Amino acid sequence: MRELALVLYEGFTALDAIGPYEVLSRVPDLEPVFVASAPGPQRTDAGATVLAEAGLGDVPAPEIVLVPGGPGQEAALGDQALLGWLRQVHERSEYTTSVCTGSLVLAAAGLLEGRRATSHWLALERLGEMGAHPVAERIVQDGKIITCAGVSAGIDMGLDLAARLAGEPVARAIQLGLEYDPQPPWDAGSPAKAQPETVALLRAASRHALDGER
Amino acid sequence: MRELALVLYEGFTALDAIGPYEVLSRVPDLEPVFVASAPGPQRTDAGATVLAEAGLGDVPAPEIVLVPGGPGQEAALGDQALLGWLRQVHERSEYTTSVCTGSLVLAAAGLLEGRRATSHWLALERLGEMGAHPVAERIVQDGKIITCAGVSAGIDMGLDLAARLAGEPVARAIQLGLEYDPQPPWDAGSPAKAQPETVALLRAASRHALDGER
Repeated sequence: MRELALVLYEGFTALDAIGPYEVLSRVPDLEPVFVASAPGPQRTDAGATVLAEAGLGDVPAPEIVLVPGGPGQEAALGDQALLGWLRQVHERSEYTTSVCTGSLVLAAAGLLEGRRATSHWLALERLGEMGAHPVAERIVQDGKIITCAGVSAGIDMGLDLAARLAGEPVARAIQLGLEYDPQPPWDAGSPAKAQPETVALLRAASRHALDGER
Repeated sequence: MRELALVLYEGFTALDAIGPYEVLSRVPDLEPVFVASAPGPQRTDAGATVLAEAGLGDVPAPEIVLVPGGPGQEAALGDQALLGWLRQVHERSEYTTSVCTGSLVLAAAGLLEGRRATSHWLALERLGEMGAHPVAERIVQDGKIITCAGVSAGIDMGLDLAARLAGEPVARAIQLGLEYDPQPPWDAGSPAKAQPETVALLRAASRHALDGER
């Protein structure tokens, strides 16, 4: 039995964690556990509440670690207990992973120094400033660290991980079980494909949010 | 301000609810609320716990209603308080919607009689037995009822709904914010595209699960 630790913190983005959770909870012999600085309810950036079943100290050696992103990462970046735990569990993990701006937390823990990694497209520049080598791809592997792009990319990374952990036939069965045959209304989910005015709108909103936080 | 009621029950599937929640919580002037028979924690089929903020009686007139699926629907199909609430709120809703086997709950409430609707591909036959006219499409609209296919389809339906509620530019901005540029490892997320042995495997597992429940 392997353990999958999904790290929660106030202000994480729900789908960052639940997308890969939905995939990986279906992998045989993999036990997911939601962990936070202490057990109890954690609110997402949009207000939903998900329960952390364990504190960090209760999960000292998970085989797989997953850090979601979300605006709450700003506090997580300075949470020394969390960063210390990440450094410690990374020493023995099989895979240390992140979704979206969760990679900034891995970088703050010192795990991405000089490594290829990705993040939400709006956070790639910042990821580079934090010592990583940012790559604008959906899923990026460097050794045992796997990072992925924004929010919904965690589903794709989950399937990739499922195949690594349990083999391709199992991962394909999970994909079909989730009916993951995506049909977005527009082929416009990345800055390279979206309308320029949409990209500009999100860049402006992101600058505004960061100004407010600093 | 419109209200979006996301119905939770023991044994719902996390992504069925959180996928569209992640999209729709970003629609301006739409207030999401997780409702259940009583406020409090609700466990998903895979063990995660999400908090219902309100009881059904606290949310008597939501503009949008969304029912997720999951194995817990077997009990929901006989929950007269829930079915009565669905009939009542449907009278005044703008849209009554479901993800995956949530459509079976709408059917049990009598809302799909003779209507075009969809569900998880493994549940389409049963949906027909319950009085609906099953359609194997990703998103199916019949009047103000919108149903969608299994689990991950709720993200696509969420974007479709976002465009209806707030216009296409807003929905496109949400798609780019979620970096919803899906890249599944295989083009195999529907029974028409998957390998025949994967389809057979899931059909057998589904029959086994239903035998166990009956």
